[in-house]
Amino acid sequence: MAAQVQEKIQLQELLRRHPADIAEVLVTLKEEEAVELLRRLYLRRAAAAPLGEMDPEEAARLLAELNREEAIHILSHMDPDDAVDLLLELPEETVRDLLSRLETRKAQMFRALLAYPPDTAGGLMSPEVLALPAHLTAQQAIEEIRRRAEELETVYYAYVVDEEKKLLGVLSLRDLVLARPETPIGAIMNREVVTLPAEMDVEEVAQLFDKYNYLALPVVDKDGHLLGIVTVDDVMDVMREEATEDLLRMSGIPSGEEAALSPPLTSVKFRLPWMMGYILLDLLVVYAVSLFEHTIAQAAVLAAFMPLIADMSGNVAAQALSVAIRGMATGEVGWRDLPRVVRKELLVGCLNGLALGAQLGLIAFLLRGNPFLGLVAAVALAGNTLVATVMGGVLPFLFKRLRVDPAMVSGPVATTLADLTGFFLFLGLGALFLRYLQ
Amino acid sequence: MAAQVQEKIQLQELLRRHPADIAEVLVTLKEEEAVELLRRLYLRRAAAAPLGEMDPEEAARLLAELNREEAIHILSHMDPDDAVDLLLELPEETVRDLLSRLETRKAQMFRALLAYPPDTAGGLMSPEVLALPAHLTAQQAIEEIRRRAEELETVYYAYVVDEEKKLLGVLSLRDLVLARPETPIGAIMNREVVTLPAEMDVEEVAQLFDKYNYLALPVVDKDGHLLGIVTVDDVMDVMREEATEDLLRMSGIPSGEEAALSPPLTSVKFRLPWMMGYILLDLLVVYAVSLFEHTIAQAAVLAAFMPLIADMSGNVAAQALSVAIRGMATGEVGWRDLPRVVRKELLVGCLNGLALGAQLGLIAFLLRGNPFLGLVAAVALAGNTLVATVMGGVLPFLFKRLRVDPAMVSGPVATTLADLTGFFLFLGLGALFLRYLQ
Repeated sequence: MAAQVQEKIQLQELLRRHPADIAEVLVTLKEEEAVELLRRLYLRRAAAAPLGEMDPEEAARLLAELNREEAIHILSHMDPDDAVDLLLELPEETVRDLLSRLETRKAQMFRALLAYPPDTAGGLMSPEVLALPAHLTAQQAIEEIRRRAEELETVYYAYVVDEEKKLLGVLSLRDLVLARPETPIGAIMNREVVTLPAEMDVEEVAQLFDKYNYLALPVVDKDGHLLGIVTVDDVMDVMREEATEDLLRMSGIPSGEEAALSPPLTSVKFRLPWMMGYILLDLLVVYAVSLFEHTIAQAAVLAAFMPLIADMSGNVAAQALSVAIRGMATGEVGWRDLPRVVRKELLVGCLNGLALGAQLGLIAFLLRGNPFLGLVAAVALAGNTLVATVMGGVLPFLFKRLRVDPAMVSGPVATTLADLTGFFLFLGLGALFLRYLQ
Repeated sequence: MAAQVQEKIQLQELLRRHPADIAEVLVTLKEEEAVELLRRLYLRRAAAAPLGEMDPEEAARLLAELNREEAIHILSHMDPDDAVDLLLELPEETVRDLLSRLETRKAQMFRALLAYPPDTAGGLMSPEVLALPAHLTAQQAIEEIRRRAEELETVYYAYVVDEEKKLLGVLSLRDLVLARPETPIGAIMNREVVTLPAEMDVEEVAQLFDKYNYLALPVVDKDGHLLGIVTVDDVMDVMREEATEDLLRMSGIPSGEEAALSPPLTSVKFRLPWMMGYILLDLLVVYAVSLFEHTIAQAAVLAAFMPLIADMSGNVAAQALSVAIRGMATGEVGWRDLPRVVRKELLVGCLNGLALGAQLGLIAFLLRGNPFLGLVAAVALAGNTLVATVMGGVLPFLFKRLRVDPAMVSGPVATTLADLTGFFLFLGLGALFLRYLQ
């Protein structure tokens, strides 16, 4: 009995928190526990909002554990755009069954939304938008908003439409509040509306929001009919995904195509071609080293340091590269900053090259007791570091100028150039000092 | 004459566009041209908004080219938070001079804002916030908003305060519009206000906005006095920077500390220690290879392929790693998805290992006409790829669990483990088939 009371208190406490917090709790529970909690939330009519805050895939997994009646009730109380994201994760027959049991108006709305690909403005929008005829006065508009406030996700903007629902202009709630009550809204609306075509790619949508700081934008079809609204919170997740795409591209995975839980064959499809290309590029290095096989045969001690030199090309290039790619992504630097970047990376490359070369030279000398080996290793790593740093920092600008994806291409090219420098120095000097290394 | 007319038309056209577009034009012009355009905008009283949309450093560079009178006029018409960001980029004496010439009220406001570190909520906020006494009615509040609409950056929220300006509650413009006109706002306000302490780190602020989808949040001091407001558009740039930080950390640069135009010595300070540590870790590989010096001396053909094997460890690990790190950053995967990730990466590692091994084996055979060399290279790269893939995908989860930065540490460890596997296989099999490789 006491345990039940305690549980009740905990539930009460949970109910007072933000849906995003409840969603966080649901995610950390084991599946049976999460379903149990969801049922309790459902009984309090508080299950819809937290599900809307969860990753759609996880939300769908939980919803599938409920019975049809529960599921339908929850779905019809979710924001339509969130509900549709969730439906997209369920098997087709489940979706068909759920839609057939939903209230007709809702079912129609969901079907219309499901028709838009999820990575377009249409797939992102909420259809519950405030559309007002142009002849209303400001006062009438405010009354209309008052009446419909419950069902609308956002009322920061109202859209003015003609009889055919074609978009004429936009009003912010602020405009309405600031206008004289008797003014017709057609006279105060802003006619220069930025609109999102329903088929616009979500990344383009995110860039528009980011650049112009909009809170919401209307979605229209080809003939200018108002279809729905995309709000800034819908866009934030897209923005985060878009902002982190360089991370994948820099590692040789095309733009945002692979997710952590993508099916293995999808991953192979994205990862393998790039690595196969990398091997071909690296054959330049294989060839360069093979020129010195005679030297290596006579001073095999050199071979032990070769993997390290190759590893360092990639590592040093990646540091400079990631700083440049990120600077480009956040808008900190562009083409006209190239001279400053070149000067900076030249200096950084020299200083780091000297330091890393000295470190490796000393280690090689101490390990093998041979000062010539130390000298050769030091000079090679210094040269390698200089080339990797400058190329890593500068190539992204050049490739971008050439309209080649800088995040994907710069790394392999910078690494290969640095490898070539490092090995020519290492093995060339090795050949020169051969008799001191044997 | 014709040219002047044309210029005028172009300026007119430009003036009709969004400040963010004008900012974009300013950024692409040469400095003299940009200053010239800025002067023309200034004459039309249209220079403040575009400067606010620019990177503060670039905006400061342009502003410094104007005379004091022009600069002061523009500064006093900018949003205060943008103006202060710009002032932070100017030399101290210039700032002192500008402040001394500004209108007293503005100068005081700017001085107060300059006192907050730029990476805190206080540094991000705008002080122009709508604070209303609790006894006003909804109608009076709307009238007050109408009166002050011009000067306020955003009026989507109004904050209710007591006589000492302590924050009591929040009202959305929507609440006001929906309330009966005669209700006191103290009765309709929401008392559970999420507030930002002035000293809160901007990254925490960004996380709050991201999680709860706020449009704006109030900033308060230790005693709960209302200081200002942070809006979602101020936070978006921080979010983009935060979201891209993994890019730097994965390459061995501590969280967001280095910008593309950081001074060279700052870059050295952040980049060098990591690379020095990397060399020490890589000594494991140096040691492993040195065990096989005798083999290499007798079959130096092996050496030519060693840099390629080392390069591939890093490349393959980076692919799996970036997918995992990004999945964690976007919230797609967490600790409980580890079993699924292990299964996935095992399969991907096997498939890619087989394919890449086959490719390299074939190439080695064709280049040297020796099937044993092909076999050795194929097996080594396959093993190396499998280990790099699984470690790259799985280590981030383990390190995160151990509270070690997964983005920074996983790459070096995964690469070293893959290197060790690759070289033991390559040189071990090389020793086994030695007489067929000579």
